[in-house]
Amino acid sequence: MTARKPAGSAVPPPYAARHARLRQAMRNAEVDSLLISNANDIHYLTPFCGEDSAAILTGKKFVLISDSRFAEEIEPLGQWLEIALRRGPIAEKVGEVAGDLKVKRLGVQAEHLTIAQRHQVAKAAEGAALVDTEGLLSALRAVKDEVEVQLIRRAVQCQQEALKATLEDLRVGQSEAEIAGRLEFEMKKRGASGAAFSTNVSAKANSSKPHYRPSDRVKLTAGKALLIDWGARVEGYCSDLTRTWAIGSMPRKIGEIYRVVLEAQLAGIAAVGPGASCREVDTAARKIIEAAGYGENYGHGLGHGIGLDVHESPSLSPRAAEGDTLKAGMIVTVEPGIYLPGVGGVRIEDDVLVTDKGHRVLSDWPKDVEHAVLL
Amino acid sequence: MTARKPAGSAVPPPYAARHARLRQAMRNAEVDSLLISNANDIHYLTPFCGEDSAAILTGKKFVLISDSRFAEEIEPLGQWLEIALRRGPIAEKVGEVAGDLKVKRLGVQAEHLTIAQRHQVAKAAEGAALVDTEGLLSALRAVKDEVEVQLIRRAVQCQQEALKATLEDLRVGQSEAEIAGRLEFEMKKRGASGAAFSTNVSAKANSSKPHYRPSDRVKLTAGKALLIDWGARVEGYCSDLTRTWAIGSMPRKIGEIYRVVLEAQLAGIAAVGPGASCREVDTAARKIIEAAGYGENYGHGLGHGIGLDVHESPSLSPRAAEGDTLKAGMIVTVEPGIYLPGVGGVRIEDDVLVTDKGHRVLSDWPKDVEHAVLL
Repeated sequence: MTARKPAGSAVPPPYAARHARLRQAMRNAEVDSLLISNANDIHYLTPFCGEDSAAILTGKKFVLISDSRFAEEIEPLGQWLEIALRRGPIAEKVGEVAGDLKVKRLGVQAEHLTIAQRHQVAKAAEGAALVDTEGLLSALRAVKDEVEVQLIRRAVQCQQEALKATLEDLRVGQSEAEIAGRLEFEMKKRGASGAAFSTNVSAKANSSKPHYRPSDRVKLTAGKALLIDWGARVEGYCSDLTRTWAIGSMPRKIGEIYRVVLEAQLAGIAAVGPGASCREVDTAARKIIEAAGYGENYGHGLGHGIGLDVHESPSLSPRAAEGDTLKAGMIVTVEPGIYLPGVGGVRIEDDVLVTDKGHRVLSDWPKDVEHAVLL
Repeated sequence: MTARKPAGSAVPPPYAARHARLRQAMRNAEVDSLLISNANDIHYLTPFCGEDSAAILTGKKFVLISDSRFAEEIEPLGQWLEIALRRGPIAEKVGEVAGDLKVKRLGVQAEHLTIAQRHQVAKAAEGAALVDTEGLLSALRAVKDEVEVQLIRRAVQCQQEALKATLEDLRVGQSEAEIAGRLEFEMKKRGASGAAFSTNVSAKANSSKPHYRPSDRVKLTAGKALLIDWGARVEGYCSDLTRTWAIGSMPRKIGEIYRVVLEAQLAGIAAVGPGASCREVDTAARKIIEAAGYGENYGHGLGHGIGLDVHESPSLSPRAAEGDTLKAGMIVTVEPGIYLPGVGGVRIEDDVLVTDKGHRVLSDWPKDVEHAVLL
């Protein structure tokens, strides 16, 4: 067994405020401690983002459970949190730490912990009652603090600069995979740790498939649509944009749906503000697409929160819960689309910060129809 | 509600054999049906690899549950499996399909399903008893069929060719992030859908951190170690190699541990064969590092299975279960390392196929100490 190291210093910003908000949520959930098993939740509460780790927060302490691979990296954090290095399974160390801390009601993350993990933790943490909680961290994480807003801004800037470099060398005949690879390379060169998600480059009719994967056999072709859905990850935080263009000249049908999607997207953005209903923001955009007769060709929600996860709370969707509303500090994507199988699809996506008085669009890549033809 | 489409044709290879093996495992687990919620398990059983989907296998049927984003992509599969498109939550559609199929004992994947998902499925699939199962698919997936071996071979080949292109342009002053980005770009150009995992490029003393993330501020420096741990993903399948070099000339200490790690790695590979104990393969390499006095500087297991996941069964580790043995068709990494904080680390990793009579190393990038100096 590896000894737990006691922490001395105060928790530094921005983590102190996040811990305090989480402790309030734990009191509301009537648990005296919380087992945090999701890597991005741990990263929200500490600078650490390694795998196979866990944390326990109590009213007074924060214990990070990890292993020797990360020992050198996390050692400096020992000044303000306790470190418990495990040699065996995570659950065993969780049980040991929970015993040392004498926790009575140990909250677990029902949306992250698997059935098997719950069995293991229940067995190892005999002295504590496990209490299933849901969404404590995701509710906190939905509202970004200033540090987070700045990181997402940097990610947006990085991905836009990378697009600029990629488009400068764009030419007919390049493959989708080549364009995607170049974009990811350019993001990394500009400080991204990587793509926020697998870059989607769809040339030709493939742009009608919202979750298409780029191919090295499909080449950029004049007179066809090119859709790029890409994002950067900067210090853990994601950005997520989509643009659609036509190559050489705008085909009539693509131009028609482009105008509808853009109008819907602008209406969606205009509806974003503090207190706005998540369902109604979705409706603001969707009704324009439906009125144009393309309701059946738009099968997904309007947008989602972004942060440490590329999809997080809130959800802008017809299926959002009745009372879900936007709050200042949330950052959401607004990304309506129209997909015509065999013809092509158009999606336009920006990242939008909810402010005290309304919203601010964090991305500024042109999207008017005059800028929608390349080469 | 979207109607379920009935399937007509026979299940094609290699899926038919995989379904048959899974049905045998289900009979052993005493369930008449299995809810498959893990994306890579679905991809093992079908060509489909989209997110937010699920599948139910019964003694006679296979039903894929997905949504409209993937409708165009999965439509051709409707010839040999049933497709159920959902508009609401996955759990609701699972309940509906389970009801239609009249399943009695619905196995769920305890190692993948979260506590919250289990609650939702239990509520929606009222007529069925949920039965927690564990490791049914991972046990099957550990033993690769010929199609899988070929895809992993292609991934290894792709990542080696990408390394060749990257090293040709290597020069002092390049940043770790730039090298990582270039490698990933070159893999994509050669048909990889992406990196199998976030590429690790560690220059200087950072190579002592087994899970370091490359920085755009750390530059390649003469006289220091360069460790690259990288892999390609080809049609879903991962490869995973590591090489360590010195830049310009080999520092004495790095050269010393390089020789120990290489000897340990060769001993580990030599121990790989059908029937070999997973623990003993680990020991074969570990005892060499311990005998050289570096046991405390080697804190991870010797290796792991690779396939659709970059870490899967089996595990070559001191903590492998007593009876775990290698079987022909398994592909494992063999990757001992020695990490000296503040000095640097060395890890050497190859991918090894267990054959009927022994093993075959799938990677052939040079690793003798004479090839371990670059530039």
